[in-house]
Amino acid sequence: MRVYYKNAGNEEKDMDSWSTVRTDLALEARESVEEKAEGLHGVTVEEEYDKAGDVHITKVVIETKNGAKMLGKPMGIYITLEAPTMTEPEEDYHQEISEVLARQLRSVLPDPDKEQSILVVGLGNREVTADSLGPNVVDNLLVNRHIVKEYGKVAYNRSKMHQVSSLVPGVMAKTGMESAEIIRGVIGETKPDLVIVIDALAARSTKRLNRTIQITNTGIHPGSGVGNHRNAITQESLHVPVLALGVPTVVDAATIVGDAMGERPVALKELNNMYVTTKDVDQQIQQISHIICDGINKALDTV
Amino acid sequence: MRVYYKNAGNEEKDMDSWSTVRTDLALEARESVEEKAEGLHGVTVEEEYDKAGDVHITKVVIETKNGAKMLGKPMGIYITLEAPTMTEPEEDYHQEISEVLARQLRSVLPDPDKEQSILVVGLGNREVTADSLGPNVVDNLLVNRHIVKEYGKVAYNRSKMHQVSSLVPGVMAKTGMESAEIIRGVIGETKPDLVIVIDALAARSTKRLNRTIQITNTGIHPGSGVGNHRNAITQESLHVPVLALGVPTVVDAATIVGDAMGERPVALKELNNMYVTTKDVDQQIQQISHIICDGINKALDTV
Amino acid sequence: MRVYYKNAGNEEKDMDSWSTVRTDLALEARESVEEKAEGLHGVTVEEEYDKAGDVHITKVVIETKNGAKMLGKPMGIYITLEAPTMTEPEEDYHQEISEVLARQLRSVLPDPDKEQSILVVGLGNREVTADSLGPNVVDNLLVNRHIVKEYGKVAYNRSKMHQVSSLVPGVMAKTGMESAEIIRGVIGETKPDLVIVIDALAARSTKRLNRTIQITNTGIHPGSGVGNHRNAITQESLHVPVLALGVPTVVDAATIVGDAMGERPVALKELNNMYVTTKDVDQQIQQISHIICDGINKALDTV
Amino acid sequence: MRVYYKNAGNEEKDMDSWSTVRTDLALEARESVEEKAEGLHGVTVEEEYDKAGDVHITKVVIETKNGAKMLGKPMGIYITLEAPTMTEPEEDYHQEISEVLARQLRSVLPDPDKEQSILVVGLGNREVTADSLGPNVVDNLLVNRHIVKEYGKVAYNRSKMHQVSSLVPGVMAKTGMESAEIIRGVIGETKPDLVIVIDALAARSTKRLNRTIQITNTGIHPGSGVGNHRNAITQESLHVPVLALGVPTVVDAATIVGDAMGERPVALKELNNMYVTTKDVDQQIQQISHIICDGINKALDTV
Repeated sequence: MRVYYKNAGNEEKDMDSWSTVRTDLALEARESVEEKAEGLHGVTVEEEYDKAGDVHITKVVIETKNGAKMLGKPMGIYITLEAPTMTEPEEDYHQEISEVLARQLRSVLPDPDKEQSILVVGLGNREVTADSLGPNVVDNLLVNRHIVKEYGKVAYNRSKMHQVSSLVPGVMAKTGMESAEIIRGVIGETKPDLVIVIDALAARSTKRLNRTIQITNTGIHPGSGVGNHRNAITQESLHVPVLALGVPTVVDAATIVGDAMGERPVALKELNNMYVTTKDVDQQIQQISHIICDGINKALDTV
Repeated sequence: MRVYYKNAGNEEKDMDSWSTVRTDLALEARESVEEKAEGLHGVTVEEEYDKAGDVHITKVVIETKNGAKMLGKPMGIYITLEAPTMTEPEEDYHQEISEVLARQLRSVLPDPDKEQSILVVGLGNREVTADSLGPNVVDNLLVNRHIVKEYGKVAYNRSKMHQVSSLVPGVMAKTGMESAEIIRGVIGETKPDLVIVIDALAARSTKRLNRTIQITNTGIHPGSGVGNHRNAITQESLHVPVLALGVPTVVDAATIVGDAMGERPVALKELNNMYVTTKDVDQQIQQISHIICDGINKALDTV
Repeated sequence: MRVYYKNAGNEEKDMDSWSTVRTDLALEARESVEEKAEGLHGVTVEEEYDKAGDVHITKVVIETKNGAKMLGKPMGIYITLEAPTMTEPEEDYHQEISEVLARQLRSVLPDPDKEQSILVVGLGNREVTADSLGPNVVDNLLVNRHIVKEYGKVAYNRSKMHQVSSLVPGVMAKTGMESAEIIRGVIGETKPDLVIVIDALAARSTKRLNRTIQITNTGIHPGSGVGNHRNAITQESLHVPVLALGVPTVVDAATIVGDAMGERPVALKELNNMYVTTKDVDQQIQQISHIICDGINKALDTV
Repeated sequence: MRVYYKNAGNEEKDMDSWSTVRTDLALEARESVEEKAEGLHGVTVEEEYDKAGDVHITKVVIETKNGAKMLGKPMGIYITLEAPTMTEPEEDYHQEISEVLARQLRSVLPDPDKEQSILVVGLGNREVTADSLGPNVVDNLLVNRHIVKEYGKVAYNRSKMHQVSSLVPGVMAKTGMESAEIIRGVIGETKPDLVIVIDALAARSTKRLNRTIQITNTGIHPGSGVGNHRNAITQESLHVPVLALGVPTVVDAATIVGDAMGERPVALKELNNMYVTTKDVDQQIQQISHIICDGINKALDTV
């Protein structure tokens, strides 16, 4: 079994079981495996419920190579927040969720007590609704690196403060460059201590669309996400720690039919390049972007 | 059998066969019926192929009440243009398709040789990508009613010219009014001779998404279209002839699973409010809007 | 002296004094007149300061025909809110200003204790930043007419509630119709008790740009506003009371040069069709639209 | 005399003459100087008229340090295209202008016969209309670097082809980084042979707004442009040749008043941060962006 590489057709041949993998969520990968395997060595799961925000929190830790192989995901921490109210328009709910997100994000920050320089990267295509999460989050983020560099933290009346910068690299079809190339270049020039990457994800189940946030310390791997942002964006490739935040905004149409039929819909060629999404995806992406933006601002204490 | 009323749950109970109807395209309704019925009285079909534009043209005329009942569509003319090149970025293709569209649209214009006052209405929600076709078409339309009224046709060096005006009524959730109320009000005040309505449609097959244009002289019926633009927009309700142009931009997710499984997916509640669309729907809606806008401009000879 | 008709060149000939009039703000018209006239019969002025919101409130009432002639504005009430913090990004300020706006708007609501049906109209062109105030306000307004008509006020757990609907008529160059025609048509069909119109205004002084809201019960008069929304939108023309809310977003370039030079810059033909605005007009229009939208929601008690 | 540094207040003190400098156009700087100086050593001027496109072409070459000092611009080539039809909606005009632009751009390409890797950078803020030229141009540019790198030029049936990539760095207030830092980083990673930078400019005369294109081989200097994209983007700072294309989209309000009055309007503090622009700037920026994008595509022969 291996990770599903979207848009990579013939690379999928050695997958043991098709139905287990067509997801970017470790939570779903685990559920899918658990269905048939009794026990799962090398993978621990903790669950928690935040009453104020009505958020179900699941922490999956893949601790061994075997666990990684079973789930088709790299070793590391995957925290999933599931919040049905994320799609409701009320701002009070969003406040609560962004508080939970901030707490969970801080829990995986390397060196949380140290002042750091942090680059937040919004992957995706701002002109494709379902893929615009990353750019939308970054559009409203509080950045302060330029102020702190020019005037010092005193400009904020603070003795300790992270320096935050942000980047929207765009997609390869528009830039002619891999997102990873642009990010590597900017890191080489501005030397951040940490990179946080935001991206839209694909889920396996429609019930998770636009109401689930995954936080992981494993970065972004080739072929993940909605668009085609190739090349790894990981600590290994960038030489700085990389946290990734993602929200599933689509389900592959073939996946949904396959799940309904209990088998792989090989005959359904017309579903290629089709995806399933919600009718109000435009508005929901706006809302979730604000929640994530608020959560990051709070986690980094720049508000 | 009866028309499928989207968002109308319990009204669907007396449908003979679920899988035949979940479409706004008369062409698909007919295909679906034909599968099981030998012959179809009261429905005539003519096909034509336009080589220059690579457009397949099908004209379905529902001539009797029985035909209407069988297809679940009102009596009238339904012309469908299928053009695979509609999704290609090349403008030359688009020119050809808009020429074909203009010819077909003129073929159903009532009183084609008479100078007329024509109101073009763009239904749908400009903030929801898959439902933004109507507003997008109208945004670029050539309107001249105000010029002709103030300066005469001499302003265009013309002895004969239609007077074109346009309207984007918005959706009920934003305006608090039915689109039909707004249109009726504007018609009462400005007295057009003809109304042309543009709307995004739902198809049954993903292979028709964003590459099919339907022209009909039957107007728009409740529950049709992607969004929720209630109340009929027809000659009967508005007291002027109404032509409707539509493009399927989505397929109901439940439909696609149902078609794949050969039965109605009653258990798949999680598919409610989900739809299937193409990954590049944002860009394709832009292109198709330009094609339709050009086609209308050419048909009305306002270019 | 008469009202300045923008885009109406030769109609300006009988203005007594050019420099007094090139403004949509009664406040500025009065200041301008006062400069040279001792006393001003038929015009009363009250000033007030709201500490919480840091809002300076001026209420100009033009009570006589003579006052109207002197100020070049119709008889009626003109309330101006000046709030320097309107351009600041902090949402707390905006809350305070919208509270003040709600109070002042309620003070001019006809029949404030009666349940009413209210149509809110956003004039202007959403594709021209400085003219997009009206559409932006209306985009986020709470409308409930369709809910109350279908389910009753019980849907909101209320025994008394206004019914609010909204309309963005668009501009004549796009629709081929006067905004006034569209509004009259919709009023004829939906019979509101009151119309509230939102529009971008021209000011005389750059120091009022994007930080001033004018409320008047005199409606909108030909040639006012940034764009070209012709024909009166007044109680007289629509046969229902009309309140107008406006914010100055531009100053005519010729005005500003004229004011600086103390004379009319007749030679400056190259300033035709030019306007002066702030560098961050795009963002400021967003902010002010939210403030006004909140203010109307609060005044109509639909929140 | 020195270059005018916008937003840099106290650095302006040693300017000999205020009225000569408030412009990014070498053409205007020269006109302004010529008014009072007989002859201008070290500066050559050639004029040409392109009949097909109705384009007036002026080539100013600053050849000596003295010329640079007199004009307040670095030594180098400045080609200005003035085309009144640039603001007309007809696409035929735009085709002609983009042809002229392509020819002129090729005339300053270093090593025009050599296959090169070229990075096109769109400076500015896509959310501020008058500053959105750069991002708009780049949004529609043909990029091919990723295709050529993966499949070779054979993918285009070509034996020789430039490799084009593009970047929208965003503005410092949003990213926390200088545009120059981001560009340097991306250059370090992707090693282009040439950088072409697009930016909105400030002019001195309103008659040049939105109808003038300046091409220069001197890059972008601090404080130039509409926004605040600091740090030089020049061959000296980036170690690759830099061409800059710009279009004046605004005039500083203080400049226009000063020019009208024949002196510096020191008292006019309220004009700070105000600019003069055309009423239809939103639409004109769209048009000009398409013209420039076409011109670059043609010059680089990627169409």
